[in-house]
Amino acid sequence: MSRAHNFSAGPAALPVEVLEELQPALVEFGDMRAGIMEISHRSAAFAEVHHAARDRLRRLMSVPDDYTILFLQGGASLQFWMLALNLVGDGGSADYLLTGTWSRKARTEAARVGDIAIAWDDPDGRYDRVPADDEFTVRPDARYLHYTSNNTIAGTQFSTPPAADRPLVCDMSSDICSRPVDVGAHALIYAGAQKNLGPSGVTAVILSPWVLEQSRRCAAVLPGGLPSMLDYGLMASKDSLFNTPNTFGIFALERVLAWLERQGGLEAMAARNARKAATLYAELDRTDFWRPHARVDSRSQMNVTWRLPTPELEATFVAEAADAGLMALKGHRSVGGIRASIYNATGQQAVDDLVAFMRDFEARHG
Amino acid sequence: MSRAHNFSAGPAALPVEVLEELQPALVEFGDMRAGIMEISHRSAAFAEVHHAARDRLRRLMSVPDDYTILFLQGGASLQFWMLALNLVGDGGSADYLLTGTWSRKARTEAARVGDIAIAWDDPDGRYDRVPADDEFTVRPDARYLHYTSNNTIAGTQFSTPPAADRPLVCDMSSDICSRPVDVGAHALIYAGAQKNLGPSGVTAVILSPWVLEQSRRCAAVLPGGLPSMLDYGLMASKDSLFNTPNTFGIFALERVLAWLERQGGLEAMAARNARKAATLYAELDRTDFWRPHARVDSRSQMNVTWRLPTPELEATFVAEAADAGLMALKGHRSVGGIRASIYNATGQQAVDDLVAFMRDFEARHG
Repeated sequence: MSRAHNFSAGPAALPVEVLEELQPALVEFGDMRAGIMEISHRSAAFAEVHHAARDRLRRLMSVPDDYTILFLQGGASLQFWMLALNLVGDGGSADYLLTGTWSRKARTEAARVGDIAIAWDDPDGRYDRVPADDEFTVRPDARYLHYTSNNTIAGTQFSTPPAADRPLVCDMSSDICSRPVDVGAHALIYAGAQKNLGPSGVTAVILSPWVLEQSRRCAAVLPGGLPSMLDYGLMASKDSLFNTPNTFGIFALERVLAWLERQGGLEAMAARNARKAATLYAELDRTDFWRPHARVDSRSQMNVTWRLPTPELEATFVAEAADAGLMALKGHRSVGGIRASIYNATGQQAVDDLVAFMRDFEARHG
Repeated sequence: MSRAHNFSAGPAALPVEVLEELQPALVEFGDMRAGIMEISHRSAAFAEVHHAARDRLRRLMSVPDDYTILFLQGGASLQFWMLALNLVGDGGSADYLLTGTWSRKARTEAARVGDIAIAWDDPDGRYDRVPADDEFTVRPDARYLHYTSNNTIAGTQFSTPPAADRPLVCDMSSDICSRPVDVGAHALIYAGAQKNLGPSGVTAVILSPWVLEQSRRCAAVLPGGLPSMLDYGLMASKDSLFNTPNTFGIFALERVLAWLERQGGLEAMAARNARKAATLYAELDRTDFWRPHARVDSRSQMNVTWRLPTPELEATFVAEAADAGLMALKGHRSVGGIRASIYNATGQQAVDDLVAFMRDFEARHG
């Protein structure tokens, strides 16, 4: 056996050279005479890993100096609630753009604590597009506007952050580090690592100073205060080490970020990702046999979704593709169809091979 | 370089044969043509890993059939609050035995939501012992009694669970799977994995049916309900897969549990752990040069703590030990002194070598 082209939506493909770097470190890490998972999270050796991860992410994303970077646990799903608890836990208000399953979930959790309004929802429920800036308004008293930059299930993406006069909060789980982004235009960015950054079990959280102030205000009025593990201020003051973090996950993430730097950083990745996506969308537009889901102006460069004429053909497509070494192309269980996730670690060759397979498939089944 | 004897309190030593099993799986896992970190948490291949982990833990610990086993994120520290939210989130009451730093932290988080009473605290604050059963009483209306079975910092341990007429809730982070335990006598057991079970970033949680009922009751009365990620009932109904878990951590844990089964299970581990501890305590009792911290009837078989005549000698001890290949013997930063953590993966040879070093050290510095 050998490694196939992996189009998994997440946990997703990682650069093989990173995986090969991790292998020896499991048994012996540096000169520690122990493996990376066996050393204290408070050791100097792990502090070096941790700070390198933070510093690389700051450089790659041009995170402003006064922003805090945390590596937490629980995925974006825990952030859905944690961010609301810290920002509107006192019953304050916030607005949400609903562009698919994940932003709906984010809103559900936030509505447990704050006054949450839906600034935009897809009127026909297809979630095949993201809103234009003139399609929504944000309440003047909203503490923030929340959006999901890339929608993994529907296969849509904001090409630029939504325009709003209020602080932006973004779930960037599925396109963080796939392209440059104006971090300073955001108050809070969070991302589960398992798509573009590393293994599952680590969540990168980037906070503006305003978030920490707001967190303190909510802590002061919440009965019982903020629970320690869900207190951004405390996590920041402890540099993500209030308790034991996912040390191996942070190490793997650090190695992925080093790989991204070697690739030329986010400008270079954006160019590669744009080319991969253009290759695949060109095939989807070539023939009516493929039925791309997302509207052209909202197409995701990370998750490309389409249908075939029948569900039976889709099942055949997924099975034949797997036999041809093109793995994990089945659409999300909630929507069906085909989904090719083409994150940073999936190369142009994988997309070229997928397109060649698609042409052959259409010739045989079209 | 080669691997040293590792006495780290956590993240801690893992069996080298497990680490060597993990290495190839990073690049190619089974016949998946992808690494273990690169496959969906909803794939059949990962489900097999996940269920094997759960089933092995159930067999090893003789977990009753009607109990639920979850693998969550956030460590014991998130459980401190999550368990209280699910069990006394409606303002109900619970009692806590305070036997050190970790049980104090558990109580602090619980007191944010419930009516928490301290059933016992060490009157002289040394935390060099755990209470006898006749030293505390539990309120009749307490929903549960919380205790920490092993205190990593002080080096004390309950030899048997405390006697109480109320359901027991136990933080078993630092001695889970080190010996047999009557799981059925507990309502809830939780443990960060990074001492006896695997890498950091996975928390094993074992729940009785009563916990799930209580969780539903609290969800019904809490304003906004329980946040999804902190709802035991939801986590149980989704089999820990409400969102993406720490897949690599669960895989590593599953391999550690398989190793424990190969070692003969928990009876065999208990015998080995008792012998290791007896070897080390015999040396501590041999001469007044060593000043063991824990009272004899409360001694931990996992974390052995002692002082030397001066802090300077302690620093010399830690440094010379490291040079001799005996790593991570420094006591916790909050109490100083020496701490040797001798979890499952630390063998008798490590303890024998430590004792030989100690005799030599005393001969030179005593």
